[in-house]
Order: sequence, then C-alpha cells, then structure tokens
Amino acid sequence: MFENKDTSRTSISTLGEFGLIDHLTKHFKIAQKSTVVGIGDDAAILDFNTKKQVVVTTDLLVEGVHFDLSYMPLKHLGYKAVMVNLSDVYAMNAEATQITVSIAVSNRFPVEALEELYAGIQAAAVTYKVDVVGGDTTSSTSGLVISITALGQVAAEKATRRDTANEGDLLVVSGDLGAAYLGLQVLEREKQVFRVNPNSQPDLEKYTYLVERQLKPEARKDITALLAELEVLPTSMIDVSDGLSSEVIHICKKSNVGCNLYEDKLPLDPQVINTCEEFNLDSTTIALSGGEDYELLFTIKQDDFLKVKANPHLSVIGHITKESEGTHLITRANTKIPLIARGWNAMEEKE
Amino acid sequence: MFENKDTSRTSISTLGEFGLIDHLTKHFKIAQKSTVVGIGDDAAILDFNTKKQVVVTTDLLVEGVHFDLSYMPLKHLGYKAVMVNLSDVYAMNAEATQITVSIAVSNRFPVEALEELYAGIQAAAVTYKVDVVGGDTTSSTSGLVISITALGQVAAEKATRRDTANEGDLLVVSGDLGAAYLGLQVLEREKQVFRVNPNSQPDLEKYTYLVERQLKPEARKDITALLAELEVLPTSMIDVSDGLSSEVIHICKKSNVGCNLYEDKLPLDPQVINTCEEFNLDSTTIALSGGEDYELLFTIKQDDFLKVKANPHLSVIGHITKESEGTHLITRANTKIPLIARGWNAMEEKE
Repeated sequence: MFENKDTSRTSISTLGEFGLIDHLTKHFKIAQKSTVVGIGDDAAILDFNTKKQVVVTTDLLVEGVHFDLSYMPLKHLGYKAVMVNLSDVYAMNAEATQITVSIAVSNRFPVEALEELYAGIQAAAVTYKVDVVGGDTTSSTSGLVISITALGQVAAEKATRRDTANEGDLLVVSGDLGAAYLGLQVLEREKQVFRVNPNSQPDLEKYTYLVERQLKPEARKDITALLAELEVLPTSMIDVSDGLSSEVIHICKKSNVGCNLYEDKLPLDPQVINTCEEFNLDSTTIALSGGEDYELLFTIKQDDFLKVKANPHLSVIGHITKESEGTHLITRANTKIPLIARGWNAMEEKE
Repeated sequence: MFENKDTSRTSISTLGEFGLIDHLTKHFKIAQKSTVVGIGDDAAILDFNTKKQVVVTTDLLVEGVHFDLSYMPLKHLGYKAVMVNLSDVYAMNAEATQITVSIAVSNRFPVEALEELYAGIQAAAVTYKVDVVGGDTTSSTSGLVISITALGQVAAEKATRRDTANEGDLLVVSGDLGAAYLGLQVLEREKQVFRVNPNSQPDLEKYTYLVERQLKPEARKDITALLAELEVLPTSMIDVSDGLSSEVIHICKKSNVGCNLYEDKLPLDPQVINTCEEFNLDSTTIALSGGEDYELLFTIKQDDFLKVKANPHLSVIGHITKESEGTHLITRANTKIPLIARGWNAMEEKE
C-alpha cells in the first residue's frame, strides 16, 4: 500500500535503531504515578500501589495472520494492538497502567508509516491513560510484527480469574457480539471487488458499525468501571477475543463447571442481523464463533441479578451448571446442543 | 535444518493454539513467591514485595536478523532469548522474577522443534529462578519470531539507571569482551565451509569459549550479587549488548558526562587475542564494537576503587569526565581518539 503513496518518504536506515525509537516515542507523555522511569534505560522502573497486585499480559500480532495492511490503516492497527492487550487487563478487573511495544519491520516501510502506527499507539495510550514504558524496534525479513505487553494493578480481592465460576452463577456479556467478524467479511469482500475493478468506490455506509468494530475496537474499561459502580464483583471474567463459545468453554473448563447458554439471549446489533441475512450467514453462529469482539464475559452470583438486569450494556445470556451437565446452547426451538469452540484461531486459520 | 531430521514429527496444527501453549508449558514450575497466577488466564497476577519497585524490559528476536537456525540449536536459542532480557533486568541491579514468552512460528516447524526451544527457555528459567507467567503462540508467514518481556524487583534506592554517572566516577566492566562476536565469525565461517563441502567436520576445539559465548551466553546475575557482597552500589549501569563503545556512549549521553577509556585496560580472553590474529582482526575494535557480550558496564565512586581493584571478575577500564571533554579512547600509544558507536545493530545490519 505504501508503494503508491505520493508523500515523501524517509528510509528507516537513516535513523538507525536508537534514533528510530527516540523519534517514534518522543511525544509520549507519562500519565501514571506508578511510572518512575519509562523509555530509555535497560528496563522501565515502576512503583505500584503497595496494596495492589500487578497483572501482566502479552500479545503478538503478525502481518498476514492477524491483520492485512491492504485494508487496515496503520494508525488503526496501532490502536487495535493496544486494545487487544488492555482488554486482557480489564478482564482481570484491573486498571491498565503501562505497556511496552516491540515491533519488527522490513525496510519496505518508510519512517512515516511507523509514525502512523505509533500515532495509533499513542492515541490509545492517551485515551486509556496507560504509559508506554519500553520496547524494542528491529528489522524483519518479511512482514510487520507487533508485540505488546500490558501491565496493570488490582486489589487482590478484586482480581477476576477464569477458574472461579460457581454452579448457579449467571453468565453475563457486555455489548453485542459478532460485529467485528462481519466487519472483516465486508472488508474482505471489498478487497476482492477492488481487485476486479480498481476504480470501484466501496460503499460501506450500511456497515459502518461492523467496520468500526473490526478496525477500531475499544477495550471495555467502561464495563469494569460500571461493575464497580453497580457494586457487582464478577465471580470469574474473560475477554471475548476468540469467539463467545470458545471463551465460555474456557471458563467452564478452568472452573470445572458446565453451563447453559440461551440462543435468544445473545446480544446482536441490527447491522449484524441484516448483514447476516445479506451474506446468508447464521447470526447465532457468528455471535458464538465470530471473535475479536473484545467484550467482557463474566459470571455473577444470582443475588446480583437485579443490579445488572435492566442495564443496556449488559446481557444475561445463561447460567453455570454442574460440570457433569456439560456446556450447552439452548436454541430458540428449545433444543439443547453441545457448545463447540470454533473460535477464530490464528494457529488454525493457516491450515 | 528440520527437513533432514529422521525423527517423527508432529504438526503444530494437530494441537491448535491453546493445546500448543498447554503442551509447551505444562512442565513449567513456579519458583517466585510473587507469582500468584501464572500461565492460563487473561493475564498473570503478581504480588511484589511492597517495599520494592518493579522493573520491566522487553526484546524481540527475529530469525534471519538476530539468529540463524543453521548453526543456532533451538534449545540454545531459547536459553539465549531469556538471557538477553534478564541481562537488562540485572543492569537495573534488580532481581529477575518473571518472564512472558511470545512466539510466532511458521508451520514448517514441527512441535518437537518448539519443544526444544521451550526446553531452553525452561532451563534458563530454572537456573535463574524466574517464572514463565504468560505468553502468546501464533503462526508466522515466514520465520521464527521470539518476544520476551522480563519483570524484576529492586529496592528504590538500589536501582541503577543509565543517566546517573558523575564526573570522576570510574568505569568498570565485568568479564571479558568481544568473544561472542568472534564466536559468530567462527560459526559463519564453518557454515561457508559446510556449503562447499557438506562432509567436512567442523573442528571448533580452538574456539570453544568463543562459540559458547555466542551460543550460550549467561546474564551476569552473579555480578549484581558480587557488587552487593562488596558493598559497591554502582552510580550507573547498563548491559553490554550492542558493543562496549555504544554502551559507554549511552551512559555518557544520558548522564551528560564525557569519559576516557583505556585501550590497555580492555579485558580480553586469550582465545579472543589468538583468534583476532588468525582472522586478521584488531582485538580492540572487536572488544569495542563486538556486541552480544551481555557483560555489565557500570560506574562507581572513586572511593569504591579498592573494593573492586583486585577482583578477577571486574576491570576498571576508564573514568568519567566533564561532558565538554567528550568520549575518548586512550590508545596504547597514548593517543586520544574519539569513541564511535559502531555497535552491532539489527536495524543497520540489513543495509
């Protein structure tokens, strides 16, 4: 995509490794009290609230596997790469505080392209108040690789793990499901159309929500804040990155419980329903297996039901059962079918 | 290299992403009290000593840029990838406590190859008592990429930064310099010989130390322990990854000071001297610019001179001057020449 750009371009090699890091991070500001030393030493130094625990999570994004630069603008990619990690921190019910960002990039990328990528990273850091405290920039023999590690802090008694759901708990999900996956299908279709007719202008107006969910997802920091406000402490929590059914099964396996999930309770945006009809796809399958929603899936005690019941951001979609009852979807026709983890899986995608 | 292996091989796709992580990490044990939750949740949970600060550092290693699998056994690669990161933690005078490990790998790697890689990672983790608390495993469209983030802890008053060297301080380096770079040259030469004559048997006996420094470097945890024992708190510290001159210049630039480095004080192993003669290389250039030594370079107060003077693991190689005096090497002929940062640089290597 850069080959066609008309703007002047700067070769990465003119800056060198150290120059490049300095150049890309010079506008980054520190927002967290816990950041003592950020970028520029062997390691960052952090001083956390002594009463809290530290959480750490990491994700690796590979060009051609996790993203396609032909329709993913670099600024959006930088933003999304941060969201993917923050989503994991929020899934622990923690406050995200710092990130490190490492990239491997081939020389076909001009410095201006990396500036775009870092502009997205910075936008995410500023919006979510996390400090970029380190990283590594190196060359790649082929595509772009982005590795982000996120740190956060949480009071020990408030950390929400995956393995602590109990029989009788209610299963709740934030927002709606399947839109990001459909956004990807829309973008893939436009890419094919563009290949056949490079003069065609994509009309994405019908799909704005879907495309935005794919290109600019938001990690649900607001949901952890909402839960605190509602005085609901989830008994377990996970973020929905690989698809709802895959995440439900994770919680059940790790917690040694089963569950019943109700098809008619799955939250779907009208654009998801309409586009599923247009693409001749089953919306339940998309909601269960779509992936990249970055919503939060959690379990709560039955006593907390009234606190979440009428909330427009939360949907009660099922309940936790004994392990021996297995993990099932109860369909609209009241049939009980086993849940299958057929999530979006970067490793299996390549088969 | 795997194509010729006679052993039975398991395709990564038979395990899937989650199966692969479980498979590769199932033997990993927790050694640190601060690790509350390790691998298996959205994020790890850590509970650090409340009186200490946390350090975090990250490195990205790319096949074809940082390593060549034709002479780097995967187990060694895993070990070295951990060392590269721990070295940064020790350079902060911190105790390394946890690491996260992310890898992107193409399907040409059988599971057995990844097991080798993780065996090296585990060996490093066990030896250095760090816990592997998370990571990500994904496919790559081309080569192997390894991203490691390391965490550690240090009492606030004992953290050693790069920007705190003072005029009059002595410049000290641990161990010896240049061997890892020469080890790489030896291995590169053997690779060329092997290409011409695949039946040739490499005779590396003369170069055992050099090859070991390249293939199995050790991070200098022992040096931070030694300094504590000697009751020497460095005024600044950095690890030698890109070459001594590059690191000296980093300390000087960040601390706004200059320095004089003495050529006749540079610590060289006899194998380095002999092999430089054989390869017709200048040993001082190799010591200054070789890179990958993973020794610790630090500054101490003059008052501490007697504490380090006779120590076989430490060499006083120069002293810190006013910034206006610049950064210089004083040669054996007593000539003063400006230091140049011509370190091993993954970004510039590709030019």
